[in-house]
Amino acid sequence: MAKITPRAQDYSEWYLDVIREADMSDYAPVRGCIVVKPYGWSLYENMRDFLDKRFKDTGHTNAAFPMFIPMSFLQREAQHVEGFSPELAVVTHGGGEPLEEALAVRPTSETIIGYMYSQWIKSYRDLPVLINTWNSVVRWEKRTRPFLRTTEFYWQEGHTAHATHDDSAAEVMRMLDVYADHAREDCAIPVLKGRKSASERFAGADNTFAIEAMMGDKRALQSATSHDLGQNFARAFDMKYLDRDNTEKLCWTTSWGMSWRMVGAVIMVHGDDQGLRLPPKIAPVQVVVVPIYKNDAEKSAVFEVAGRVHAELKDAGVRVRLDDRDETPGFKFNDWEMRGVPLRVEIGPRDVASNSVALGRRDMPGKAGKSFVPQAGLSDKVKTVLADIHTSLLSQAEQFQNANIREVNTYAELKAAVEDGFALAPVVDDPKVDAQIKDETKATNRIFPLQQAEGEWTCILTGRPVRERALFGKAY
Amino acid sequence: MAKITPRAQDYSEWYLDVIREADMSDYAPVRGCIVVKPYGWSLYENMRDFLDKRFKDTGHTNAAFPMFIPMSFLQREAQHVEGFSPELAVVTHGGGEPLEEALAVRPTSETIIGYMYSQWIKSYRDLPVLINTWNSVVRWEKRTRPFLRTTEFYWQEGHTAHATHDDSAAEVMRMLDVYADHAREDCAIPVLKGRKSASERFAGADNTFAIEAMMGDKRALQSATSHDLGQNFARAFDMKYLDRDNTEKLCWTTSWGMSWRMVGAVIMVHGDDQGLRLPPKIAPVQVVVVPIYKNDAEKSAVFEVAGRVHAELKDAGVRVRLDDRDETPGFKFNDWEMRGVPLRVEIGPRDVASNSVALGRRDMPGKAGKSFVPQAGLSDKVKTVLADIHTSLLSQAEQFQNANIREVNTYAELKAAVEDGFALAPVVDDPKVDAQIKDETKATNRIFPLQQAEGEWTCILTGRPVRERALFGKAY
Repeated sequence: MAKITPRAQDYSEWYLDVIREADMSDYAPVRGCIVVKPYGWSLYENMRDFLDKRFKDTGHTNAAFPMFIPMSFLQREAQHVEGFSPELAVVTHGGGEPLEEALAVRPTSETIIGYMYSQWIKSYRDLPVLINTWNSVVRWEKRTRPFLRTTEFYWQEGHTAHATHDDSAAEVMRMLDVYADHAREDCAIPVLKGRKSASERFAGADNTFAIEAMMGDKRALQSATSHDLGQNFARAFDMKYLDRDNTEKLCWTTSWGMSWRMVGAVIMVHGDDQGLRLPPKIAPVQVVVVPIYKNDAEKSAVFEVAGRVHAELKDAGVRVRLDDRDETPGFKFNDWEMRGVPLRVEIGPRDVASNSVALGRRDMPGKAGKSFVPQAGLSDKVKTVLADIHTSLLSQAEQFQNANIREVNTYAELKAAVEDGFALAPVVDDPKVDAQIKDETKATNRIFPLQQAEGEWTCILTGRPVRERALFGKAY
Repeated sequence: MAKITPRAQDYSEWYLDVIREADMSDYAPVRGCIVVKPYGWSLYENMRDFLDKRFKDTGHTNAAFPMFIPMSFLQREAQHVEGFSPELAVVTHGGGEPLEEALAVRPTSETIIGYMYSQWIKSYRDLPVLINTWNSVVRWEKRTRPFLRTTEFYWQEGHTAHATHDDSAAEVMRMLDVYADHAREDCAIPVLKGRKSASERFAGADNTFAIEAMMGDKRALQSATSHDLGQNFARAFDMKYLDRDNTEKLCWTTSWGMSWRMVGAVIMVHGDDQGLRLPPKIAPVQVVVVPIYKNDAEKSAVFEVAGRVHAELKDAGVRVRLDDRDETPGFKFNDWEMRGVPLRVEIGPRDVASNSVALGRRDMPGKAGKSFVPQAGLSDKVKTVLADIHTSLLSQAEQFQNANIREVNTYAELKAAVEDGFALAPVVDDPKVDAQIKDETKATNRIFPLQQAEGEWTCILTGRPVRERALFGKAY
């Protein structure tokens, strides 16, 4: 049987073990890159489809832009080039010849999309432009961590252009909500929404908003960002429109992205020492049917019912697998537990005799998750239980997160808190303050949460009066 | 109103005009690359989803592999590196430093996937491996033609490994059938299936099979390929398995791909001088509702019905758009004709009075495509008509193709035939023969069709006896 390191012993090893044993990804023979194997990719596809539907429901359409960006484009926005230059992969030769101008493999597409929008947008009638694109981007990384830190990673990047800042600012918040809803409703992950501090902003943004989630080791994972780009890229790429009043005006733009890091979040928020625990909505396999028998006579009776149950669940739209491998039930239980399948349907001779099946929930350990239900009406029952499992995983994650966030009012309290969770501390929004806290505690300013109590506090470092607390935590 | 060049005047200009006026794609500021705009991408997405479902229904799963391939990998298969070297984009710098080994941006992924499979496959129990991946690849191009010839293009590439050549050969034909069915059933494009001649084989394949389609200018478009890779890549990457008899054996592999060229095929097979004509299954918008009115009183009555019809069709799962723009009906008709929307629902005051609507089919010109139907039961009627439109587009394309393929028995007949269509000519499978015919007629050996009459003929060039005809045509 596959062995994985217990979380309490070494969380980092546990993460790698689960990914390997659940067959999610593998290391590629290119530094910093991974291969995502079918089980991992199927999970990502399900997440992508849910998120894509949310984008379309909020009026966005998809398009495709080139993976190559002329170096001169990146240089047009000063902050942007400064932020991304050290991370670029650069194509210098094409078709056997040196290129006149080197091309960067996109680290993100604000510049080339800005250029295209400047060609497309002429009048206020052309606005807003609401486009998303699913692709992979490249940012050179020295250390690899599957899904969390890879040189090439898959994500989506939305890019929108608007007539006014009111419009673009509303879009930034709309997409932050879309991400938070996706995390919660589809992935059963509770997140905190907030504004990034000045030191953590996207290179070229006026303001960056993010959702942050607490992993199983109480560290933070930035799960998606939504940027208010002001007129910075509009200016750099001359993105202008003729307004109703017949004057030319600069557009206001946004960008927003969520990557396959979210797969890492799903692993770390829900996983336990037996492996993955996948939220039913996004699980590649929602239900596994395991036949249990001792001899050929039992096998044939059990398989008849198992086959019928499998067909019935499939017809009902459940992603179900019948495990007909020639292995012991114990092996199969462990295998599907490792892979995080939310619900197991066990069918043995006694179940055949009593027209029932045994259900085993992955979200509850052992007997607590076990029940016996009639075969009649099983698919409705299964759907109800799957919905319950989503709620239960979300609630477990929420309780864990809430139990590990502490409001603090002094630097000493912050230092203690971030050793074992998140701290909410009143601070001024100043890169020097962020840097000092990071140096001394390894915790970073994750966000100034949008939800704040009314009041005035004292910055734990500068003593200046502030009206906001920031969320601090050690982060991935 | 938008102007497009008539096909008879300049087919090539017509193609570019349609793409521009239907807002499908734009040129990118990177040589050889295009941007696919939302309308074009939405069409591609629909095609992709149908094809993806066919892959999954035949037992395949998706995965993701890195876009970078170490140069040394490409060199492991001699034919492969010879074929692809002149077309590579090469990354020489990463993270601000020169790389020890340069990386190619994948032109296709046989090599890196071969490497991974060699890690994953240990035993006969691991076979077959049936994986597909959706990505973009790069092959340096001097001339650009949207969707047909671009430096970066989107496609899917399937890569499978098998225990025996019987298994891999069956897979090659299975996927050729999947492509042909997709072309026919989803895109209303009739195709010819066949084996590529020796000179047209994929670099590294023992045999390449392809589907070929006839475009509106009677030129051929290779629409997908399925390769029998024999043991060439298995040998190059040491892809071995331990068989039941406890001996190590080399795997047999296949690869198969279809790209966004198929979007070009949809444009060219179905389009006419008014613009696109899209097959209903893949059309981004299947039905457009156009309200017709002269004054505010009419407008309000007409919009009430139009809104109801729109909602009803949407609820029935039809991709429908209500055109409520402040433009004339004539403008809207032309606009949606240009975009190839299969069916128009017109609603004017008389239709309101008579509880009917007027339908206008894009596949039949003017009055022939017009009918008046009751509002009651409209969504069922619309679905029937959409299915009819698919059949009608397919049948038109089939008639056109059949009328323009000629069996020939002499080189003189071939020369005449390829001036205005395809020729089916008996030839030996010899690169020299292919080359001579290409030099002298500009027509290429597209395929030896799988369907052949029984018999023996004389090669039109060498006079040798042959049992097959090849399909010749000028090609994209």
